[in-house]
Amino acid sequence: MTQADQRRSLRGNSHRATGEPAPFTPDDFTARMARAARAAGEAGFRGILATPGPDLLYLTGYAPVAVTERLTLLIVPADGDPTLIVPTLERPDAEAAPAAERLIVRDWGDGSDPYRLAAGVLDAGGRYAISDSAWALQLLGLQAQLPGTGFAPLTTALPMLRAVKDADELQRLAAAATAADLTYGEILSVRFAGRRENEVARDLADLLTKHGHSQVDFTVVGSGPNGANPHHEAGDRVMRVGDTVVLDFGGLKAGYGSDTTRTVSIGEPSAEVRHVHEVVRQAQEAAFVAVYPGVTCEAIDRVARQVITEAGYGPHFVHRTGHGIGLTTHEPPYIVEGEKQPLEPGMCFSIEPGVYLPGHFGVRIEDIVTVTRDGGQRLNETSHALAVVD
Amino acid sequence: MTQADQRRSLRGNSHRATGEPAPFTPDDFTARMARAARAAGEAGFRGILATPGPDLLYLTGYAPVAVTERLTLLIVPADGDPTLIVPTLERPDAEAAPAAERLIVRDWGDGSDPYRLAAGVLDAGGRYAISDSAWALQLLGLQAQLPGTGFAPLTTALPMLRAVKDADELQRLAAAATAADLTYGEILSVRFAGRRENEVARDLADLLTKHGHSQVDFTVVGSGPNGANPHHEAGDRVMRVGDTVVLDFGGLKAGYGSDTTRTVSIGEPSAEVRHVHEVVRQAQEAAFVAVYPGVTCEAIDRVARQVITEAGYGPHFVHRTGHGIGLTTHEPPYIVEGEKQPLEPGMCFSIEPGVYLPGHFGVRIEDIVTVTRDGGQRLNETSHALAVVD
Repeated sequence: MTQADQRRSLRGNSHRATGEPAPFTPDDFTARMARAARAAGEAGFRGILATPGPDLLYLTGYAPVAVTERLTLLIVPADGDPTLIVPTLERPDAEAAPAAERLIVRDWGDGSDPYRLAAGVLDAGGRYAISDSAWALQLLGLQAQLPGTGFAPLTTALPMLRAVKDADELQRLAAAATAADLTYGEILSVRFAGRRENEVARDLADLLTKHGHSQVDFTVVGSGPNGANPHHEAGDRVMRVGDTVVLDFGGLKAGYGSDTTRTVSIGEPSAEVRHVHEVVRQAQEAAFVAVYPGVTCEAIDRVARQVITEAGYGPHFVHRTGHGIGLTTHEPPYIVEGEKQPLEPGMCFSIEPGVYLPGHFGVRIEDIVTVTRDGGQRLNETSHALAVVD
Repeated sequence: MTQADQRRSLRGNSHRATGEPAPFTPDDFTARMARAARAAGEAGFRGILATPGPDLLYLTGYAPVAVTERLTLLIVPADGDPTLIVPTLERPDAEAAPAAERLIVRDWGDGSDPYRLAAGVLDAGGRYAISDSAWALQLLGLQAQLPGTGFAPLTTALPMLRAVKDADELQRLAAAATAADLTYGEILSVRFAGRRENEVARDLADLLTKHGHSQVDFTVVGSGPNGANPHHEAGDRVMRVGDTVVLDFGGLKAGYGSDTTRTVSIGEPSAEVRHVHEVVRQAQEAAFVAVYPGVTCEAIDRVARQVITEAGYGPHFVHRTGHGIGLTTHEPPYIVEGEKQPLEPGMCFSIEPGVYLPGHFGVRIEDIVTVTRDGGQRLNETSHALAVVD
């Protein structure tokens, strides 16, 4: 397939009559758990421990109503059948999960010790990979029961577990990116000058929802000096003509993430803003062009950083170049110095270089990119030109 | 003060002209950190490690925009000055936090090792209490750097750290409870029969927001057999006359939690529903009456359970009697068998016994209660009578 063909196929099914992709099936989850078990065994682990969050959702389709202190733990052993340990009062919910029929479900009541129950299912001498976001409370509970057992963070132990997306996941990510692109297209028509950042942030949230997002995770509107703080969200600063505004927004659509950034100018930008924007645009483009199977994550980061450094703004690019995206908006692969992971077809991640001039303004441009056999493919397709808004 | 006086004083300031309590000051946070340091030292710990979430918010007022894999760590040593470790790109946000001026702020850039930085601030031979919800990724990172250092979950190590609320916190919890009570009062007038559970759930969310909640955390509408699943949220079941409906809802107002449950009947209830409801009402009342300084948490659980067991429904009360509430809706003290913690004035927690008859219906009644020197005081004040709705 050519890239254009791939793109068409990628977009294809997201425009079906229903507008929503078909849910993942018990067979999908069984296949994922089998692949995870195999990968764990090959990496020297006795199994995988997944707590509520993206790993549990990926492996079983189960997302408890709330993530709390009560232990919910999926144990996928390298050999044998997976077990799901749940609080008694959440057993009905767990049994309604798509993969429940493929799991041994065991429950524990308030006042009993869930770690003892879990320890009985685990191999006391083995090593396990545990969800990054498992609570320390729960890891310490397991460690106390199993002093001879080793634990490693799942993304360190098995960074590839969720990093390569299948065709269905790619469709969802493409559909989420399209919704974000439509949101950007429409936000260019709203009024900026004279309004507060958080008013435009609300517009962004409304647009993401209108375009099918079930959840809005962030709506950064960083105007003027606020744009120089890369994690500024949106405040009550009233924007005015002459401001540069960083717009970085995303959330979940059909379970998968969107995340895109464009920087706009209210009225005509200054020569300095134009220049910095062009530097960032070139850095983003260079990093994108460098995407190819086998290239390391850190190499992509270096390409973007090199362009910005050569232009004299190296100290003002204060973060990594990107992060993976899927069921969450931050996951492997991380596009950062020191990350030797080679790119593989099906990986999806952001490329988002930025320059931040404290007290003045910031510029960031971000697309979600997937790796194909022929190189990178952008899921975000809106123009990188510096847009002028009112 | 009499209880009535206390109640008036508790409610008093929440009805000021602004409607919102004054924000906590840097001095408030300094005092909290000093108290935490003292408590840690007395319990044999070298300090407290707080990650983004309620502990960090309580101690510093700082809530990063997102909780991610990047390490943010507050170190409050038993002796010495507190240090806040943050990702470089979040440093501007951290420095804007209320307690920032009282902290040594150190940052780490993407690609550098934050655990090595943290290890340099910690005592390699000591023991530390770490936030329950700290990520396993981060605890494992610290353990790898500091193999001789011990870690314990903060709520196990220092269960009282946030459990006793001060006057300002009590006012906020009372105001949140009042908002939930107003929500319940208004939901009794909406139509239930013929509508879906999630439509009424949306009504509850809208009402909580209308009454000043900044965040809605849960809106359980468990009708008919769905009410027999204590953690059922709300689905697309169409409710009808004769259904019993469990309504359990809450969120955050001015940073503090609400959480209340009432069970209603669409049309006249059956004799069985009336009977079960009365059993639960008596259990809730008995547990409330038992609240007194010095009484253990498990004693309160036993009182509620005793009433339900004597009525023959013991096996159908499948969860603990309650949980603490404050910056979160689940925190110490837990009202559960095995919890020997004695009640102290200023503690706030739920009393929420329930009976769940699988395939039929469920009943739960929940109030938030605070402990005074003279006994318990309800923050929720709506009637416990079984309300009949349309």
